Amino acid sequence: MVKKYKKGNDVSYALGATVVMELLNNRPDKARAVYISEKSDVKAVVDRAHACGVPVVVGDKPFNILSPKENCFAIGEFDKYDCALSRERNHIVLVNPSNSGNLGTIMRAALAFDCTDIAVIRPAVDAFDPKTVRASMGAAFSVNTRFYDSFDDYAKEFYDREIVPFMLCGSPFAEKEFSRDKKYSLVFGNEATGLPSEFSEYGAVRIEQSDKVDSLNLSVAVSIALYKIRNL
Amino acid sequence: MVKKYKKGNDVSYALGATVVMELLNNRPDKARAVYISEKSDVKAVVDRAHACGVPVVVGDKPFNILSPKENCFAIGEFDKYDCALSRERNHIVLVNPSNSGNLGTIMRAALAFDCTDIAVIRPAVDAFDPKTVRASMGAAFSVNTRFYDSFDDYAKEFYDREIVPFMLCGSPFAEKEFSRDKKYSLVFGNEATGLPSEFSEYGAVRIEQSDKVDSLNLSVAVSIALYKIRNL
Repeated sequence: MVKKYKKGNDVSYALGATVVMELLNNRPDKARAVYISEKSDVKAVVDRAHACGVPVVVGDKPFNILSPKENCFAIGEFDKYDCALSRERNHIVLVNPSNSGNLGTIMRAALAFDCTDIAVIRPAVDAFDPKTVRASMGAAFSVNTRFYDSFDDYAKEFYDREIVPFMLCGSPFAEKEFSRDKKYSLVFGNEATGLPSEFSEYGAVRIEQSDKVDSLNLSVAVSIALYKIRNL
Repeated sequence: MVKKYKKGNDVSYALGATVVMELLNNRPDKARAVYISEKSDVKAVVDRAHACGVPVVVGDKPFNILSPKENCFAIGEFDKYDCALSRERNHIVLVNPSNSGNLGTIMRAALAFDCTDIAVIRPAVDAFDPKTVRASMGAAFSVNTRFYDSFDDYAKEFYDREIVPFMLCGSPFAEKEFSRDKKYSLVFGNEATGLPSEFSEYGAVRIEQSDKVDSLNLSVAVSIALYKIRNL
């Protein structure tokens, strides 16, 4: 039976039919079971689960435990897994992101803009938290997310690329020249505190904004950066 | 005493010290009272409320009613108000937005990118819902949001400008030429359903994305559009 989600668990849950379909389509080997509410049959999900050889359980109890208030009629239980990042692709690097909704929205934008390798520097929100997975609309199952204990650990592994920190003290992003021939790591700080000042040594950029707001929403900032890189 | 928020109420609530400060700094005439938790004094808020002549009430009861789970130590009670949109500025037009977090994030991006006039076509989420106001980080008190019963009502009032609908069937946004000499209404549909097909008659644009996601998050799409217009 399902349990309330905790970060230390080996399994997590995809909440909602759309998200379960993304699990079954992209990571069927990780799916343990699909739970279907008595209130709905969600036939496409059941058919897909059968095709993937994933057990289907009908009943409302998992919904009361995992999603008491939400309009959710299908749950996919899955094993968490590790991902490796590609050396051949641009990366998003999130230093200490704290909000599951932001991380999920960033995953969705990453998939939309073909930049699907995401490094996350701890301490950080859980990439497999059901809230993150739901905010990603299931993109969590199509991107590669890898956690590091420090930015140095990440930078040692990926030394052969340009580091581009996004900071309020940086130079204008619109004037920054990017080349298709290079690989970039686009680095963003915590929602409340941004990046530590030492990152400015890499040559920071700033997405131009008025001084009427302290900063941009993190997922907005990442998306604007990805859109530019995608359309070089 | 405060009441649980309902859409039909004349008053709403700004949750959190940052948001209350935005209320007091930008709409002090609308502020009715400031509630301060016994757990915190939030001195800057109290000082500002005194300077604005707004009563300050100390006690935890309003927090139990309005924000039982949140890390919130100041609440600002305010009268809702109407705004007019400027004829001289670009507009964001949201047709049937349904998510308070998205609307708040759009308000924050609107203020960041100097496009602070927002038309909302009903049925739509409530611009003064405490969740919207909180997601805006208080930008709700600096933007002009006006509701219309139909897009036609809006278009009749603002006939002298270019309508730019954002639709999956549109032509590439990167190739769309914008001029500083013209006024634009950037039109976005509902999170799940997008814009009705008849909007394509205005000449729709599409923010370029992979086919691996159905669509962009609404606040991400609006922000990418605003960033481009701001940096013409």
